[in-house]
Amino acid sequence: MIRVGIVGGTGYTGVELLRLLAAHPHVVLHTITSRGEAGTPVAALFPSLRGHVSAVFVHPDQAPLTECDVVFFATPNGVAMKEAPQLLSKGVRVIDLAADFRLRDPEVWEKWYGMAHVAPEWLAKAVYGLPELFRDEIRNAQLVANPGCYPTAVQLGLAPLLEAGVIRLDGLIADCKSGVSGAGRKAEIHTLLAEASDNFKAYSVSGHRHWPEIVQGLSRVAGGKVDLTFVPHLTPMIRGIHATLYAELTTDCDPHAIFVQRYANEPFVDVLPPGAHPETRSVRAANLCRIAVHRPGGGRRVVILSVIDNLVKGAAGQAVQNMNLLFGLPETMGLTQIPVSP
Amino acid sequence: MIRVGIVGGTGYTGVELLRLLAAHPHVVLHTITSRGEAGTPVAALFPSLRGHVSAVFVHPDQAPLTECDVVFFATPNGVAMKEAPQLLSKGVRVIDLAADFRLRDPEVWEKWYGMAHVAPEWLAKAVYGLPELFRDEIRNAQLVANPGCYPTAVQLGLAPLLEAGVIRLDGLIADCKSGVSGAGRKAEIHTLLAEASDNFKAYSVSGHRHWPEIVQGLSRVAGGKVDLTFVPHLTPMIRGIHATLYAELTTDCDPHAIFVQRYANEPFVDVLPPGAHPETRSVRAANLCRIAVHRPGGGRRVVILSVIDNLVKGAAGQAVQNMNLLFGLPETMGLTQIPVSP
Amino acid sequence: MIRVGIVGGTGYTGVELLRLLAAHPHVVLHTITSRGEAGTPVAALFPSLRGHVSAVFVHPDQAPLTECDVVFFATPNGVAMKEAPQLLSKGVRVIDLAADFRLRDPEVWEKWYGMAHVAPEWLAKAVYGLPELFRDEIRNAQLVANPGCYPTAVQLGLAPLLEAGVIRLDGLIADCKSGVSGAGRKAEIHTLLAEASDNFKAYSVSGHRHWPEIVQGLSRVAGGKVDLTFVPHLTPMIRGIHATLYAELTTDCDPHAIFVQRYANEPFVDVLPPGAHPETRSVRAANLCRIAVHRPGGGRRVVILSVIDNLVKGAAGQAVQNMNLLFGLPETMGLTQIPVSP
Amino acid sequence: MIRVGIVGGTGYTGVELLRLLAAHPHVVLHTITSRGEAGTPVAALFPSLRGHVSAVFVHPDQAPLTECDVVFFATPNGVAMKEAPQLLSKGVRVIDLAADFRLRDPEVWEKWYGMAHVAPEWLAKAVYGLPELFRDEIRNAQLVANPGCYPTAVQLGLAPLLEAGVIRLDGLIADCKSGVSGAGRKAEIHTLLAEASDNFKAYSVSGHRHWPEIVQGLSRVAGGKVDLTFVPHLTPMIRGIHATLYAELTTDCDPHAIFVQRYANEPFVDVLPPGAHPETRSVRAANLCRIAVHRPGGGRRVVILSVIDNLVKGAAGQAVQNMNLLFGLPETMGLTQIPVSP
Repeated sequence: MIRVGIVGGTGYTGVELLRLLAAHPHVVLHTITSRGEAGTPVAALFPSLRGHVSAVFVHPDQAPLTECDVVFFATPNGVAMKEAPQLLSKGVRVIDLAADFRLRDPEVWEKWYGMAHVAPEWLAKAVYGLPELFRDEIRNAQLVANPGCYPTAVQLGLAPLLEAGVIRLDGLIADCKSGVSGAGRKAEIHTLLAEASDNFKAYSVSGHRHWPEIVQGLSRVAGGKVDLTFVPHLTPMIRGIHATLYAELTTDCDPHAIFVQRYANEPFVDVLPPGAHPETRSVRAANLCRIAVHRPGGGRRVVILSVIDNLVKGAAGQAVQNMNLLFGLPETMGLTQIPVSP
Repeated sequence: MIRVGIVGGTGYTGVELLRLLAAHPHVVLHTITSRGEAGTPVAALFPSLRGHVSAVFVHPDQAPLTECDVVFFATPNGVAMKEAPQLLSKGVRVIDLAADFRLRDPEVWEKWYGMAHVAPEWLAKAVYGLPELFRDEIRNAQLVANPGCYPTAVQLGLAPLLEAGVIRLDGLIADCKSGVSGAGRKAEIHTLLAEASDNFKAYSVSGHRHWPEIVQGLSRVAGGKVDLTFVPHLTPMIRGIHATLYAELTTDCDPHAIFVQRYANEPFVDVLPPGAHPETRSVRAANLCRIAVHRPGGGRRVVILSVIDNLVKGAAGQAVQNMNLLFGLPETMGLTQIPVSP
Repeated sequence: MIRVGIVGGTGYTGVELLRLLAAHPHVVLHTITSRGEAGTPVAALFPSLRGHVSAVFVHPDQAPLTECDVVFFATPNGVAMKEAPQLLSKGVRVIDLAADFRLRDPEVWEKWYGMAHVAPEWLAKAVYGLPELFRDEIRNAQLVANPGCYPTAVQLGLAPLLEAGVIRLDGLIADCKSGVSGAGRKAEIHTLLAEASDNFKAYSVSGHRHWPEIVQGLSRVAGGKVDLTFVPHLTPMIRGIHATLYAELTTDCDPHAIFVQRYANEPFVDVLPPGAHPETRSVRAANLCRIAVHRPGGGRRVVILSVIDNLVKGAAGQAVQNMNLLFGLPETMGLTQIPVSP
Repeated sequence: MIRVGIVGGTGYTGVELLRLLAAHPHVVLHTITSRGEAGTPVAALFPSLRGHVSAVFVHPDQAPLTECDVVFFATPNGVAMKEAPQLLSKGVRVIDLAADFRLRDPEVWEKWYGMAHVAPEWLAKAVYGLPELFRDEIRNAQLVANPGCYPTAVQLGLAPLLEAGVIRLDGLIADCKSGVSGAGRKAEIHTLLAEASDNFKAYSVSGHRHWPEIVQGLSRVAGGKVDLTFVPHLTPMIRGIHATLYAELTTDCDPHAIFVQRYANEPFVDVLPPGAHPETRSVRAANLCRIAVHRPGGGRRVVILSVIDNLVKGAAGQAVQNMNLLFGLPETMGLTQIPVSP
């Protein structure tokens, strides 16, 4: 059994991680920390976990994190870079669900996250945890930077065509729509039901932190700098991301066939038949990305539709997938939940 | 392995049954029928099941239902009473998720369902499938009438006090609120998102089919005829029932303690601590009823809050629970999903 | 033209008051205050008002409130009792949309609101602003206590039968459901879309501040102390309250006819035909209460369904209606908006 | 007073037209037709209109449509082209809210709408009713083709840059999101709340009927054929369209300033300050288009965000605006409603 620690499990990625880990056959939850909720039973904060999770939140200073085989950080940005290194130095493996180790270049990181990076040496060693693209590296990692939700949907939706070299590297557009849980379990006005329900808006059009992460990943895959416009939108639903991706073919090819072949052996990527339109609910609560490929009018423009559950394949599920890789377990272990629909 | 047949699997109880059965370790789906969708792969109709259900809908006339150990009817009212008897006569067990066998008195049934009952002999033999109240009968049944969604929430919420004889049998009130999936997967205007969203209404205040079912069950438990007012409401959510129940204590007692004791060994009923307010999402996608007991101002009036997922404990999950009982399996087998929240 | 001041216009009742007053033909907005938003144009905070409201939030210390004919307090509880008296002493009329002047008994007020009342002399002089019940008093008031949202729906739904003396005063039940805007424009977790959407729950079953307000009003109407159980629920919609009311007839009568007669001349109360079920959306954004009366099974139990928009007839609209009464204007002036549906 | 007739007022554009016309000071509703609802009071079908609309649906064969000054067709596609010509020949003015007269080329129309056009002579005479682009033509029209909802949002969002000649005509992208009321008041499964809520999907990516309409309008404005990719999405809200538009600048210019200048005198187009993100709710229930202009990273790519209420500026409100133009009334008459938010 893998002894797991969770740092900061009071947000949505935290509760989702608990839901998945509680059903994982090779995991025992060794400790879970929270500054604000120390002493509170986890199931008192999250009644959905009553009967499944008996743990009590522990103050970080008293948590036996070094006894764990792996520690998940489900903390705000800036925490893991401070606290993970001492665990890493003792051989504990770390999977960070926040953004602290996602960007390779400390300067770029500091520009977008607005603070100095205190562990640049680990930034260099961290492996970007998108298994479908970087599986082998993850297997041997000690520190995994779990990707952002938008970057997961966008990279899985554009990588095959970039790898195949059949689209232009410039003029890429990622028009993305996210459910409100993507904003986290934070007391804010703009995500109140009375504000965000029956409403739709774009945000951060001038620049969003997931943009450099996407560009970094896709440029690596493409073998050259990609030029991408990324526009995120808030849509009135709880879970789900829908990425609508636009690219221009440079050669006559069958883009659908490229996706089918590329993901033929991927258990968590499902390429739909031609003409399909994936719905976000078709992956609700499951570790899955569904993709459809369109070529309107048969022209050079290709439109890719990519959907995930932002809390699962876009966060906690992908973290568990990475954990499975780290420990040599079957990659799908504990991740075979069937989507909940309707 | 239990060979399972499903008749009419194109509605919401059908797709939920498929989600649960596909993950049940002792079940193999032998056949599934649909008149309208014969020849269509199940996963083409319900993309959420892609990769988990490979079955194809079969026309009822060609389905090998008699080869099954158990057949679930997820059909409109009036179908099972016509088609189940021939299966029953060949020894197949039947679990009807519709209302055909829920009321013991054929006259009452005919009054509320507006048609003649064509299998009154089976009406007499059918067992009402609410395991927490009638477990022993279910174990020995050949035909199980799976309870309605409202009746499940209301009966689990009132039975303990009636069994204990501590409330008046008259003046009971069940003010119930249901998500829209309770209306089924039917093309109707009043349940369109543009009609039912951001809206709340009562319906069928003058009389609803679940009223005689609730009265029948509670009267049996109480050992005397109960007088109940039942008002259902439509609330703008997908899944979930919240029953707010009002009764008058006849004796000084601790109603919360009565619930705790009554359900101490029930795996699918969770009595919350005093002062709690169960949320429907805390049971989303799980076979669970959560209950809280209140006594405002410490008076004679007791208020019980009872929540279920109408598609799980209120339909498909309870049906699987009944199947487990019929076949001597552990009652929780295949039903340990953790609620999905948020 | 009536010179209007608004104290604390940054919440939902504030923005709704602005929407209504901006279209009122006899009103000029003289000043609007906010501590936190001083200097911000109102339309920058509420883009829906761009082009209709040019005012800028003023710091309370600098606002010319004494120059106003009437000042609306759209503030948290506890503010108006401190700040209104000095305005009242200078002859300014005040309409308080909060709860400071709703309960006649200071001790009761202090018990439910958890603070000492600093203006008990004004508590005695305040008039409870439910025009359909207390119109004549309102006309001559200087200080109007605008009713709570639940109390408006419940009192309009029970008063006719209590006035007519045809129901028991005890055993009354008000099972109420509110949209999330009722919780205000406050940064809180439980009203986030990701928490409150696709979810339903009761709250404050052990006691809610609107309970003494309802009991006070109904007891006055009934000419005797009423015994009422009040259970509020949160429903996943933006606006709207649905009160489901249960009472027991003491005499054979036609309760529907009593409502029709009682409200025949009320412009803002609409009694639906027998058998109807009012929907909250049928009053969305309008100053209106729609009521239906049921008598299930023809017995003694009567069920009344009463719906309002909590922000209009339950708050800002009723405040404008009170203002019209205070200034001798036609009661419907500025309040003839047609409900927005779908 | 303008005598108005409505043909087919049982859908969402119908009820919205009734809401607006009932409050219009120069309009009297002379007749309203419905085959299916003949004899039903309008307010019985739409309770939100109780007290405001006393009309009764009349069978089309008995409706005095020729007595009207103007007739609105709020019918399915294919009806107006059959029935409008006889009214037009008698001098009645017609505003068609469906698509029958939107495309100039009958062949293109027939390809996209799948039927022969029976009134090609009127197709040639019809004026496309987008006042901000074609106001003068509308004033002199007898037959107005009211634009589609998506085409309104997209054309208003791209026209200024095309008129100014500062963007490429090819590579245009319109990624559009619509609330569910855009699908009409039709009994269909995919728009049920239980299907469309908490869900997001694209549809008709291979081709949508609004594409040729948008291309026709923008090409006319641009003075040359534009190349546009149009992807519509269904978002779980009742009302609202959000168009996210992507274009490439061909010259260094200030695109925001171009919009400000272009729409300076337009009462129904509001250009937001730089950096803003318009929300669909900020135009809810009002005849308004709000637009923001972005240039991420300061590059050649310009992103325009354009929002409307699909039932108002995207349908009924624009139809009333066209009516005002036809009859020489102030363009804003009856259209000054303030958006309803929250």
